[in-house]
Amino acid sequence: MSTLKVGRSSVCVRASIASSPQKQYSPKTPAVKSGEEVRIAVLGASGYTGAEIVRLLANHPQFRITVMTADRKAGEQFGSVFPHLITQDLPNLVAIKDADFSDVDAVFCCLPHGTTQEIIKGLPQQLKIVDLSADFRLRDINEYAEWYGHAHRAPELQEEAVYGLTEVLRDEIRNARLVANPGCYPTSIQLPLVPLIKAKLIKLSNIIIDAKSGVTGAGRGAKEANLYTEIAEGIHAYGIKGHRHVPEVEQGLSEAAESKVTISFTPNLICMKRGMQSTMFVEMAPGVTVSDLYQHLKSTYEGEEFVKLLNGSNVPHTRHVVGSNYCFMNVFEDRIPGRAIIISVIDNLVKGASGQAVQNLNLMMGLPENMGLQYQPLFP
Amino acid sequence: MSTLKVGRSSVCVRASIASSPQKQYSPKTPAVKSGEEVRIAVLGASGYTGAEIVRLLANHPQFRITVMTADRKAGEQFGSVFPHLITQDLPNLVAIKDADFSDVDAVFCCLPHGTTQEIIKGLPQQLKIVDLSADFRLRDINEYAEWYGHAHRAPELQEEAVYGLTEVLRDEIRNARLVANPGCYPTSIQLPLVPLIKAKLIKLSNIIIDAKSGVTGAGRGAKEANLYTEIAEGIHAYGIKGHRHVPEVEQGLSEAAESKVTISFTPNLICMKRGMQSTMFVEMAPGVTVSDLYQHLKSTYEGEEFVKLLNGSNVPHTRHVVGSNYCFMNVFEDRIPGRAIIISVIDNLVKGASGQAVQNLNLMMGLPENMGLQYQPLFP
Amino acid sequence: MSTLKVGRSSVCVRASIASSPQKQYSPKTPAVKSGEEVRIAVLGASGYTGAEIVRLLANHPQFRITVMTADRKAGEQFGSVFPHLITQDLPNLVAIKDADFSDVDAVFCCLPHGTTQEIIKGLPQQLKIVDLSADFRLRDINEYAEWYGHAHRAPELQEEAVYGLTEVLRDEIRNARLVANPGCYPTSIQLPLVPLIKAKLIKLSNIIIDAKSGVTGAGRGAKEANLYTEIAEGIHAYGIKGHRHVPEVEQGLSEAAESKVTISFTPNLICMKRGMQSTMFVEMAPGVTVSDLYQHLKSTYEGEEFVKLLNGSNVPHTRHVVGSNYCFMNVFEDRIPGRAIIISVIDNLVKGASGQAVQNLNLMMGLPENMGLQYQPLFP
Amino acid sequence: MSTLKVGRSSVCVRASIASSPQKQYSPKTPAVKSGEEVRIAVLGASGYTGAEIVRLLANHPQFRITVMTADRKAGEQFGSVFPHLITQDLPNLVAIKDADFSDVDAVFCCLPHGTTQEIIKGLPQQLKIVDLSADFRLRDINEYAEWYGHAHRAPELQEEAVYGLTEVLRDEIRNARLVANPGCYPTSIQLPLVPLIKAKLIKLSNIIIDAKSGVTGAGRGAKEANLYTEIAEGIHAYGIKGHRHVPEVEQGLSEAAESKVTISFTPNLICMKRGMQSTMFVEMAPGVTVSDLYQHLKSTYEGEEFVKLLNGSNVPHTRHVVGSNYCFMNVFEDRIPGRAIIISVIDNLVKGASGQAVQNLNLMMGLPENMGLQYQPLFP
Repeated sequence: MSTLKVGRSSVCVRASIASSPQKQYSPKTPAVKSGEEVRIAVLGASGYTGAEIVRLLANHPQFRITVMTADRKAGEQFGSVFPHLITQDLPNLVAIKDADFSDVDAVFCCLPHGTTQEIIKGLPQQLKIVDLSADFRLRDINEYAEWYGHAHRAPELQEEAVYGLTEVLRDEIRNARLVANPGCYPTSIQLPLVPLIKAKLIKLSNIIIDAKSGVTGAGRGAKEANLYTEIAEGIHAYGIKGHRHVPEVEQGLSEAAESKVTISFTPNLICMKRGMQSTMFVEMAPGVTVSDLYQHLKSTYEGEEFVKLLNGSNVPHTRHVVGSNYCFMNVFEDRIPGRAIIISVIDNLVKGASGQAVQNLNLMMGLPENMGLQYQPLFP
Repeated sequence: MSTLKVGRSSVCVRASIASSPQKQYSPKTPAVKSGEEVRIAVLGASGYTGAEIVRLLANHPQFRITVMTADRKAGEQFGSVFPHLITQDLPNLVAIKDADFSDVDAVFCCLPHGTTQEIIKGLPQQLKIVDLSADFRLRDINEYAEWYGHAHRAPELQEEAVYGLTEVLRDEIRNARLVANPGCYPTSIQLPLVPLIKAKLIKLSNIIIDAKSGVTGAGRGAKEANLYTEIAEGIHAYGIKGHRHVPEVEQGLSEAAESKVTISFTPNLICMKRGMQSTMFVEMAPGVTVSDLYQHLKSTYEGEEFVKLLNGSNVPHTRHVVGSNYCFMNVFEDRIPGRAIIISVIDNLVKGASGQAVQNLNLMMGLPENMGLQYQPLFP
Repeated sequence: MSTLKVGRSSVCVRASIASSPQKQYSPKTPAVKSGEEVRIAVLGASGYTGAEIVRLLANHPQFRITVMTADRKAGEQFGSVFPHLITQDLPNLVAIKDADFSDVDAVFCCLPHGTTQEIIKGLPQQLKIVDLSADFRLRDINEYAEWYGHAHRAPELQEEAVYGLTEVLRDEIRNARLVANPGCYPTSIQLPLVPLIKAKLIKLSNIIIDAKSGVTGAGRGAKEANLYTEIAEGIHAYGIKGHRHVPEVEQGLSEAAESKVTISFTPNLICMKRGMQSTMFVEMAPGVTVSDLYQHLKSTYEGEEFVKLLNGSNVPHTRHVVGSNYCFMNVFEDRIPGRAIIISVIDNLVKGASGQAVQNLNLMMGLPENMGLQYQPLFP
Repeated sequence: MSTLKVGRSSVCVRASIASSPQKQYSPKTPAVKSGEEVRIAVLGASGYTGAEIVRLLANHPQFRITVMTADRKAGEQFGSVFPHLITQDLPNLVAIKDADFSDVDAVFCCLPHGTTQEIIKGLPQQLKIVDLSADFRLRDINEYAEWYGHAHRAPELQEEAVYGLTEVLRDEIRNARLVANPGCYPTSIQLPLVPLIKAKLIKLSNIIIDAKSGVTGAGRGAKEANLYTEIAEGIHAYGIKGHRHVPEVEQGLSEAAESKVTISFTPNLICMKRGMQSTMFVEMAPGVTVSDLYQHLKSTYEGEEFVKLLNGSNVPHTRHVVGSNYCFMNVFEDRIPGRAIIISVIDNLVKGASGQAVQNLNLMMGLPENMGLQYQPLFP
């Protein structure tokens, strides 16, 4: 047998470490050392994003879960709430008010929207936090109030929060204490559109987005509308004008454009558990071709491990990223001259939630960004 | 018990007879009399549209199947090809060359695209024909040649063929001998857009359509790409620029506009057996509001049995029309001022194929249009 | 065109009227006349079995719904609860206490188990009632109390109630005022086993049943366990020892055997909306062969419209009966000598619930048993 | 931050190394050293089991794929055949006749049944081989000939081949050069039944098995019967008497029993991609209780990483093992005295195929058995 090649001795970070852009970087806080353990609390562990954090961390070499909270399931074993994870050695669920954070270095906050602001306000200051709710995603607290129907409850934290779209805001995330992890739709939309807008390759008017989501996006709450019998074998649009991810997307695109962008956004719920496809219909700037869009996305994401521009006319399928942290995308010519169609796919629970959250905490801890995230998609 | 109310004595035509627009009409050929039997041939009966014709006709009071062809299954019983229909008393499958048309009044032609032109050319002249293939849908045989890669093989029949979008071309269909039954995407798109374009309520530029189809649209051919394992739990776009339904839609919209219309059309295949949703992003004409669109569609389809504009902000779901001949639609305001979003849903095998075919033959035979079609959707 | 053949003038009763066994029969009460309207109340119309009654009756020539109740949805239109049925002209939902039964001839009672006994007790005496709950299925009220945890609340009605397994108890049902419509599992199991037991062709010991149900069997209640995300792409057994359909099956088999039968029964929930398969592993009586079982089932069900023994080694598929009132079944040789395997399939909402209920009320009204039930299965 | 605990420095082998039974063992051939690379060939890489090997090895620290064959796809990139794995750096596909084995240490043979015997005969002698086909599973070549319709083509290799049911035959597998990887049904059935039979806790007569499989078990071949449209939303039994996994199961049970065992075996195909459930109805030996069965399985599998006996009355769900190498099982009391019901679930592509294959090659190479296999199930 041959000797193992250089760079393969560490399982989970092979291949991408070399190309990772973070090497030139010195974080403000001393990074966790290689091999050192980071003690993790998962708040709101009884929902799907919480369970997904647990699944991903099962193979993370340095993150270890020491606290798990779930108010309505307090006292239960995690394996009774999520039997697919019974083999994991985990702390029992406690109510958040009973959680002991003295043994914790970092927090994944998987609580419902609205409740999170006050809870995070109450956490010890030294903790690093990735919040998977929408509570800190909108920089403008007036916009927050408008979309969520109540005043923001932690405006000072909002100032501090960094928006966690990893590939776009990597450097800010590294230095952050509190990261607002992006929504699933916003992740799948901004990854292709932000660089194209920054490069002024597409027009800001008439950006039309038809997006399709799997049902895990709706959470684990018991609702008639999400029963198997109501969802299987069908599709429907919802929240056509007023989906709460709209201001988040418009914030990101407007910043990239340095001018206000208003999008058309139609989300659809389809009969799949995981997966998200965003189809974006855009007008190109004068003189710009589809090939220009393609080349710009190619150079933007060339070194990235988790964002992949497909070759040629290959169409991204949601099935091809399930269970992984990948975003696959591609650009297509439209029949209408001057227009292009961009399609991106992610697993809404991974790159659209818990996977990107782990990616962000890796960065915040000075660890390789892909640590614990090298799951290949599960297909079929 | 009370006496049965007037209008309820005939099962399958209740309710709609009164409102049906066909009463003022005198067809050129004498219509089949009430109670008289129409003998039907189904050509290409081993595919899904053929089976669906059989299912629908099981309760048609005047159509009776006397001939069924399926070249590769010749000699077999239909019930061995489609075991869900074993209870039906049907003729055995024969090769098309062995079919005896002396006992036939009308034909549903469910053959693959391309083969149909010559076969229909060879049928006895007195037969009424509804062709479910794409072979006679494009009026311009040059356009046919361009999209299908070979010269049209029956240009004289193409002249005669009437495009069978029932609600739009009802009068022409009544007098037709040969009807080209519309494709599924074109049906779902033209039903809302043709009246809006005719009324000049929407602009002709930048009509963007994102459509989603169930897998029966791909037929029963054994292809790796359509295996359960490849399709379940996912979505992907396909034929992004070049789907063959594009020229059919553009033909219909251009005629309505009396000027050439070019659409953006992105079809998606999703993990459901039946169902189709078309989402249409349009720019309204200056001064027009979403309410104007709604009112126009409302008055257009008010008397129709099979086209239903939903109330208020109700969103059409594909699940709510499965198994039925209905098209449900609605109109929504876009976030971008001056734009509207229109959503329509059909069962691609019924209103998008075999149901509309039966509806058309009913008309051609002078029968109530809804005869044999009053299946309510199967939900859940 | 030829003249319509004799026997085809009435759509919905063709073919089977001639072979229907009910012709020799004189019901105690004068049957409803042909063409006369039967006014129907549907109690508990907001669940799946209620909606299915509405779907089936849409094409019933003599049943018309005049009252619909749904306590929690009182005041709503039925079409807002079940949008797939918006085209139906139906009375609004009322609370059961506000229902006016003066305009009602017969009742489908689709209420939850347990609440039904007192409600039916309070209904006017002249109404004919088909109860789809389990409340009157167990003849022995002690057994009821044991399985349902409370004393029976209408023991005098229990005496009167006739068990509605149509093909087995047709004559009793014709004369009944109150029919206890069978459960879905019991229907799929008793149809094959009761005749085999009566004929003493199979042993009474070690009857092992592995059954699989679609999720509509669990109703429309919002439960975490029945979310799309929890159910899709999987199977699990449940209620392994204590499913409440067990005493109902054992009652039927014991009566057929004229001796107590104890079964092994393992139900499974699988990721499909409709459908039920029961696989029965039985020991044959000494000297009996699989062919004997087959022949006996064949002669038992030869004239039946809704129970079909498949030919040869054809295996019943749940997909082949969806949306229809059929039960398909077949018998197979086991590898273990002396044993046989019997498989039956039904649509749990039709033959397993609402379809059989309509079939029973047809009988009770002296109408052709298949009236309004001639839906062919919806496949694919 | 705390120092990382002992035993956590290596990602993929944590927890279970300590309890792994292989430490007392000295293999005949020197094991591969920690960190040394094993070069792997995957033969027949264009099927689902081949793709699954690639997915699993993506995180294997010591196995590296250097050769991939797929005759009909020779010359293509693996990522064009399985786009979900495009991020993997893999050799191009070659025809098997062109494969260069000089750079290979071990082979996963994922070829179709029947072709494998001659191909393996032609491979270099020094290679270690795990064959995922059925070609070497039956020790008795006469039985092979009977079930597969042709004489065995490599009887001398059959003598050498070790049956790869890891937890049952671990020691033999460690010393093997050629391992016949078990079938999916046989894995799910033998894991619970072999120890119970060995301990004489269940009777050998009347072992009745009703098993349910996902559709990946049928492979990637383009067959009408396996189209999405034919499979979705349904279940059917198949191969009721003659499934080819029967002799494999009977071989294993007979060896455990030291006497011939004949089973009743009914496989079902259900609408899910991955997953398998086997339900086993057994008669207990006189005086034995369900608790005895439970305790014996508990002690048998106590130290095992991949076989888990659930607590209490928890029912194994197929969804809870998808994507992982786990087998979950439990034992239940039957209503019929003296009988028990045993349910086991696996992912048919992992523990039922490629996962167990990796587990076996780990053993054959002297590596920790769980290396590269610590994927937690993907739920939902």
